[in-house]
Amino acid sequence: LVDDMTTIPPSHRDLLERPLFGHLATIRPDGTAQSNPVWYLWDGTTLRFSFSTKQQKHRNVEANPSVALSIHDPDEPYRYLEIRGVIETVEPDPDGGTFFMELNARYNGPFGKSLYPADGAVYTMRPTATSKQG
Amino acid sequence: LVDDMTTIPPSHRDLLERPLFGHLATIRPDGTAQSNPVWYLWDGTTLRFSFSTKQQKHRNVEANPSVALSIHDPDEPYRYLEIRGVIETVEPDPDGGTFFMELNARYNGPFGKSLYPADGAVYTMRPTATSKQG
Repeated sequence: LVDDMTTIPPSHRDLLERPLFGHLATIRPDGTAQSNPVWYLWDGTTLRFSFSTKQQKHRNVEANPSVALSIHDPDEPYRYLEIRGVIETVEPDPDGGTFFMELNARYNGPFGKSLYPADGAVYTMRPTATSKQG
Repeated sequence: LVDDMTTIPPSHRDLLERPLFGHLATIRPDGTAQSNPVWYLWDGTTLRFSFSTKQQKHRNVEANPSVALSIHDPDEPYRYLEIRGVIETVEPDPDGGTFFMELNARYNGPFGKSLYPADGAVYTMRPTATSKQG
Protein backbone atom coordinates (compact mmCIF):
# COMPACT_ATOMS: atom_id res chain seq x y z
CA LEU A 1 0.00 0.00 0.00
CA VAL A 2 1.12 3.51 -0.75
CA ASP A 3 0.52 7.00 0.53
CA ASP A 4 -2.46 7.85 -1.61
CA MET A 5 -2.16 11.57 -0.97
CA THR A 6 0.74 11.26 -3.38
CA THR A 7 -0.97 8.57 -5.47
CA ILE A 8 -4.03 10.48 -6.63
CA PRO A 9 -2.85 12.86 -9.35
CA PRO A 10 -3.77 16.43 -8.32
CA SER A 11 -4.88 17.11 -11.89
CA HIS A 12 -7.70 14.57 -11.53
CA ARG A 13 -8.71 14.89 -7.87
CA ASP A 14 -11.78 16.88 -8.86
CA LEU A 15 -13.23 13.66 -10.31
CA LEU A 16 -13.22 12.22 -6.78
CA GLU A 17 -14.61 15.36 -5.21
CA ARG A 18 -17.51 15.88 -7.62
CA PRO A 19 -20.63 13.72 -7.18
CA LEU A 20 -20.09 11.73 -10.36
CA PHE A 21 -20.99 8.12 -11.05
CA GLY A 22 -18.06 5.76 -10.80
CA HIS A 23 -17.93 2.27 -12.21
CA LEU A 24 -16.62 -0.37 -9.85
CA ALA A 25 -14.93 -3.48 -11.17
CA THR A 26 -15.05 -6.47 -8.84
CA ILE A 27 -14.12 -10.12 -9.28
CA ARG A 28 -16.80 -12.73 -8.78
CA PRO A 29 -16.18 -15.88 -6.73
CA ASP A 30 -15.89 -17.86 -9.99
CA GLY A 31 -13.05 -15.56 -11.08
CA THR A 32 -14.97 -13.56 -13.70
CA ALA A 33 -15.29 -9.79 -13.99
CA GLN A 34 -18.22 -7.63 -12.86
CA SER A 35 -18.84 -3.87 -13.31
CA ASN A 36 -21.46 -1.65 -11.67
CA PRO A 37 -22.12 2.08 -11.39
CA VAL A 38 -21.64 3.30 -7.82
CA TRP A 39 -21.83 6.33 -5.59
CA TYR A 40 -18.61 7.09 -3.73
CA LEU A 41 -17.22 9.45 -1.11
CA TRP A 42 -13.53 10.40 -1.05
CA ASP A 43 -12.13 11.59 2.28
CA GLY A 44 -8.57 12.28 1.10
CA THR A 45 -7.32 8.84 2.12
CA THR A 46 -9.94 6.24 1.33
CA LEU A 47 -13.03 5.85 -0.83
CA ARG A 48 -16.26 4.67 0.74
CA PHE A 49 -19.28 3.01 -0.83
CA SER A 50 -22.67 1.91 0.49
CA PHE A 51 -23.97 -1.48 -0.64
CA SER A 52 -26.31 -4.07 0.72
CA THR A 53 -24.64 -7.21 2.01
CA LYS A 54 -27.25 -9.11 -0.01
CA GLN A 55 -25.78 -7.83 -3.28
CA GLN A 56 -23.46 -9.84 -5.51
CA LYS A 57 -20.84 -7.09 -5.02
CA HIS A 58 -20.68 -8.08 -1.36
CA ARG A 59 -20.02 -11.74 -2.17
CA ASN A 60 -17.37 -10.64 -4.66
CA VAL A 61 -15.34 -8.47 -2.31
CA GLU A 62 -15.66 -11.00 0.51
CA ALA A 63 -14.08 -13.59 -1.80
CA ASN A 64 -11.56 -11.19 -3.34
CA PRO A 65 -11.04 -7.64 -2.01
CA SER A 66 -9.43 -6.38 -5.25
CA VAL A 67 -11.49 -3.63 -6.89
CA ALA A 68 -11.01 -0.83 -9.42
CA LEU A 69 -13.06 2.35 -9.79
CA SER A 70 -13.11 4.39 -13.00
CA ILE A 71 -14.71 7.79 -13.39
CA HIS A 72 -14.97 9.78 -16.59
CA ASP A 73 -15.64 13.50 -16.70
CA PRO A 74 -19.08 14.00 -18.28
CA ASP A 75 -18.01 17.45 -19.45
CA GLU A 76 -14.82 16.18 -21.05
CA PRO A 77 -15.27 12.47 -21.63
CA TYR A 78 -11.72 11.62 -22.68
CA ARG A 79 -10.59 12.76 -19.26
CA TYR A 80 -10.77 9.99 -16.70
CA LEU A 81 -9.28 8.59 -13.55
CA GLU A 82 -8.95 4.95 -12.57
CA ILE A 83 -8.16 3.92 -9.02
CA ARG A 84 -7.23 0.35 -8.21
CA GLY A 85 -7.15 -0.88 -4.66
CA VAL A 86 -8.63 -3.16 -2.05
CA ILE A 87 -11.72 -3.18 0.12
CA GLU A 88 -10.18 -3.02 3.57
CA THR A 89 -13.25 -3.05 5.76
CA VAL A 90 -16.96 -3.81 5.56
CA GLU A 91 -18.74 -2.28 8.53
CA PRO A 92 -22.32 -1.65 9.60
CA ASP A 93 -23.63 1.78 8.65
CA PRO A 94 -24.00 3.67 11.97
CA ASP A 95 -27.51 4.36 13.24
CA GLY A 96 -29.19 2.53 10.40
CA GLY A 97 -27.89 4.55 7.49
CA THR A 98 -25.96 7.66 8.52
CA PHE A 99 -23.31 7.16 5.87
CA PHE A 100 -25.87 6.22 3.24
CA MET A 101 -27.78 9.44 3.92
CA GLU A 102 -24.51 11.40 3.57
CA LEU A 103 -24.05 9.83 0.14
CA ASN A 104 -27.71 10.43 -0.71
CA ALA A 105 -27.28 14.14 0.09
CA ARG A 106 -24.02 14.38 -1.88
CA TYR A 107 -25.78 12.97 -4.95
CA ASN A 108 -29.12 14.71 -4.41
CA GLY A 109 -30.50 11.20 -4.20
CA PRO A 110 -34.15 10.30 -3.90
CA PHE A 111 -33.84 8.09 -0.82
CA GLY A 112 -35.15 8.54 2.69
CA LYS A 113 -33.58 6.99 5.74
CA SER A 114 -36.73 5.05 6.49
CA LEU A 115 -36.06 2.99 3.36
CA TYR A 116 -32.50 2.12 4.31
CA PRO A 117 -32.14 -1.66 4.41
CA ALA A 118 -31.07 -3.38 7.60
CA ASP A 119 -28.38 -5.20 5.61
CA GLY A 120 -26.64 -2.06 4.33
CA ALA A 121 -22.94 -1.64 5.01
CA VAL A 122 -20.05 0.77 4.49
CA TYR A 123 -17.25 -0.52 2.23
CA THR A 124 -13.91 1.23 2.59
CA MET A 125 -11.44 1.04 -0.30
CA ARG A 126 -7.76 1.86 0.06
CA PRO A 127 -6.16 2.99 -3.22
CA THR A 128 -2.98 1.22 -4.28
CA ALA A 129 -2.50 2.51 -7.84
CA THR A 130 -4.03 4.91 -10.34
CA SER A 131 -4.13 5.56 -14.05
CA LYS A 132 -5.50 8.54 -15.91
CA GLN A 133 -6.04 10.20 -19.23
CA GLY A 134 -6.67 13.75 -20.31
CA LEU B 1 -22.87 -19.00 -24.07
CA VAL B 2 -26.38 -17.88 -24.70
CA ASP B 3 -28.45 -16.33 -27.43
CA ASP B 4 -27.81 -12.70 -26.61
CA MET B 5 -30.73 -11.46 -28.69
CA THR B 6 -32.74 -12.81 -25.81
CA THR B 7 -30.12 -11.88 -23.22
CA ILE B 8 -30.00 -8.14 -23.71
CA PRO B 9 -33.15 -6.76 -22.10
CA PRO B 10 -35.12 -4.81 -24.76
CA SER B 11 -35.79 -2.08 -22.18
CA HIS B 12 -32.06 -1.29 -22.03
CA ARG B 13 -30.88 -1.94 -25.61
CA ASP B 14 -30.79 1.79 -26.30
CA LEU B 15 -27.78 2.02 -23.97
CA LEU B 16 -25.88 -0.19 -26.42
CA GLU B 17 -27.11 1.67 -29.47
CA ARG B 18 -26.33 5.20 -28.24
CA PRO B 19 -22.70 6.39 -28.40
CA LEU B 20 -22.21 6.40 -24.63
CA PHE B 21 -19.06 5.72 -22.69
CA GLY B 22 -18.92 2.24 -21.23
CA HIS B 23 -16.62 1.11 -18.45
CA LEU B 24 -14.85 -2.16 -19.08
CA ALA B 25 -13.76 -4.35 -16.18
CA THR B 26 -10.87 -6.66 -16.95
CA ILE B 27 -8.71 -8.90 -14.79
CA ARG B 28 -4.98 -8.28 -14.70
CA PRO B 29 -2.46 -11.12 -14.98
CA ASP B 30 -1.86 -10.87 -11.21
CA GLY B 31 -5.58 -11.50 -10.62
CA THR B 32 -6.54 -7.95 -9.62
CA ALA B 33 -9.33 -5.81 -11.08
CA GLN B 34 -8.99 -3.02 -13.66
CA SER B 35 -11.62 -0.61 -15.04
CA ASN B 36 -11.39 1.75 -18.03
CA PRO B 37 -13.81 3.89 -20.04
CA VAL B 38 -14.21 2.56 -23.57
CA TRP B 39 -15.93 3.15 -26.87
CA TYR B 40 -18.02 0.22 -28.09
CA LEU B 41 -20.08 -0.86 -31.08
CA TRP B 42 -22.98 -3.29 -30.70
CA ASP B 43 -24.00 -5.25 -33.81
CA GLY B 44 -26.91 -7.14 -32.28
CA THR B 45 -24.78 -10.17 -31.40
CA THR B 46 -21.39 -9.03 -30.17
CA LEU B 47 -19.73 -5.90 -28.82
CA ARG B 48 -16.55 -4.65 -30.41
CA PHE B 49 -13.81 -2.43 -29.02
CA SER B 50 -10.65 -0.90 -30.44
CA PHE B 51 -7.51 -1.01 -28.29
CA SER B 52 -3.83 -1.00 -28.88
CA THR B 53 -2.10 -4.32 -28.26
CA LYS B 54 0.46 -2.33 -26.28
CA GLN B 55 -2.15 -1.45 -23.64
CA GLN B 56 -2.50 -3.20 -20.30
CA LYS B 57 -6.06 -4.14 -21.32
CA HIS B 58 -4.56 -6.32 -24.06
CA ARG B 59 -2.33 -8.18 -21.63
CA ASN B 60 -5.31 -8.64 -19.32
CA VAL B 61 -7.66 -10.20 -21.86
CA GLU B 62 -4.89 -12.35 -23.30
CA ALA B 63 -4.36 -13.79 -19.81
CA ASN B 64 -8.07 -13.95 -18.92
CA PRO B 65 -10.81 -13.26 -21.50
CA SER B 66 -13.46 -12.51 -18.85
CA VAL B 67 -14.73 -8.92 -19.08
CA ALA B 68 -17.75 -6.88 -17.98
CA LEU B 69 -19.05 -3.66 -19.48
CA SER B 70 -21.33 -1.28 -17.58
CA ILE B 71 -23.08 1.73 -19.08
CA HIS B 72 -25.17 4.25 -17.21
CA ASP B 73 -27.67 6.56 -18.86
CA PRO B 74 -26.35 10.12 -18.47
CA ASP B 75 -29.92 11.42 -18.71
CA GLU B 76 -31.21 9.07 -16.03
CA PRO B 77 -28.20 7.92 -14.02
CA TYR B 78 -29.91 5.24 -11.93
CA ARG B 79 -30.69 3.43 -15.16
CA TYR B 80 -27.88 1.16 -16.24
CA LEU B 81 -26.96 -2.00 -18.06
CA GLU B 82 -24.13 -4.38 -17.26
CA ILE B 83 -23.01 -7.02 -19.74
CA ARG B 84 -20.64 -9.75 -18.68
CA GLY B 85 -18.92 -11.93 -21.23
CA VAL B 86 -15.70 -12.99 -22.86
CA ILE B 87 -13.35 -11.55 -25.44
CA GLU B 88 -13.62 -14.16 -28.16
CA THR B 89 -11.25 -12.75 -30.77
CA VAL B 90 -8.50 -10.17 -31.11
CA GLU B 91 -7.95 -9.36 -34.77
CA PRO B 92 -6.05 -6.77 -36.77
CA ASP B 93 -8.12 -3.75 -37.72
CA PRO B 94 -8.62 -4.02 -41.52
CA ASP B 95 -6.78 -1.54 -43.73
CA GLY B 96 -5.01 0.12 -40.84
CA GLY B 97 -7.98 1.33 -38.87
CA THR B 98 -11.30 0.88 -40.69
CA PHE B 99 -13.09 -0.25 -37.55
CA PHE B 100 -11.42 2.41 -35.44
CA MET B 101 -12.63 5.11 -37.85
CA GLU B 102 -16.16 3.65 -37.65
CA LEU B 103 -16.00 4.04 -33.87
CA ASN B 104 -14.48 7.51 -34.21
CA ALA B 105 -17.42 8.57 -36.42
CA ARG B 106 -19.99 7.03 -34.07
CA TYR B 107 -18.54 9.04 -31.17
CA ASN B 108 -17.78 12.19 -33.14
CA GLY B 109 -14.21 11.53 -32.13
CA PRO B 110 -11.26 13.78 -32.82
CA PHE B 111 -9.04 11.18 -34.49
CA GLY B 112 -7.80 10.89 -38.05
CA LYS B 113 -6.86 7.63 -39.68
CA SER B 114 -3.31 8.81 -40.20
CA LEU B 115 -2.84 8.68 -36.43
CA TYR B 116 -4.09 5.12 -36.09
CA PRO B 117 -1.37 3.02 -34.47
CA ALA B 118 0.04 0.00 -36.26
CA ASP B 119 -0.61 -2.06 -33.13
CA GLY B 120 -4.35 -1.36 -32.97
CA ALA B 121 -6.73 -4.31 -32.92
CA VAL B 122 -10.43 -5.18 -32.85
CA TYR B 123 -11.62 -6.95 -29.69
CA THR B 124 -14.88 -8.87 -30.00
CA MET B 125 -16.87 -9.61 -26.84
CA ARG B 126 -19.61 -12.21 -26.67
CA PRO B 127 -22.18 -11.50 -23.94
CA THR B 128 -22.96 -14.31 -21.54
CA ALA B 129 -25.05 -12.54 -18.88
CA THR B 130 -26.54 -9.15 -18.07
CA SER B 131 -27.81 -7.17 -15.14
CA LYS B 132 -29.70 -3.91 -15.11
CA GLN B 133 -31.41 -1.29 -13.04
CA GLY B 134 -34.03 1.33 -13.76
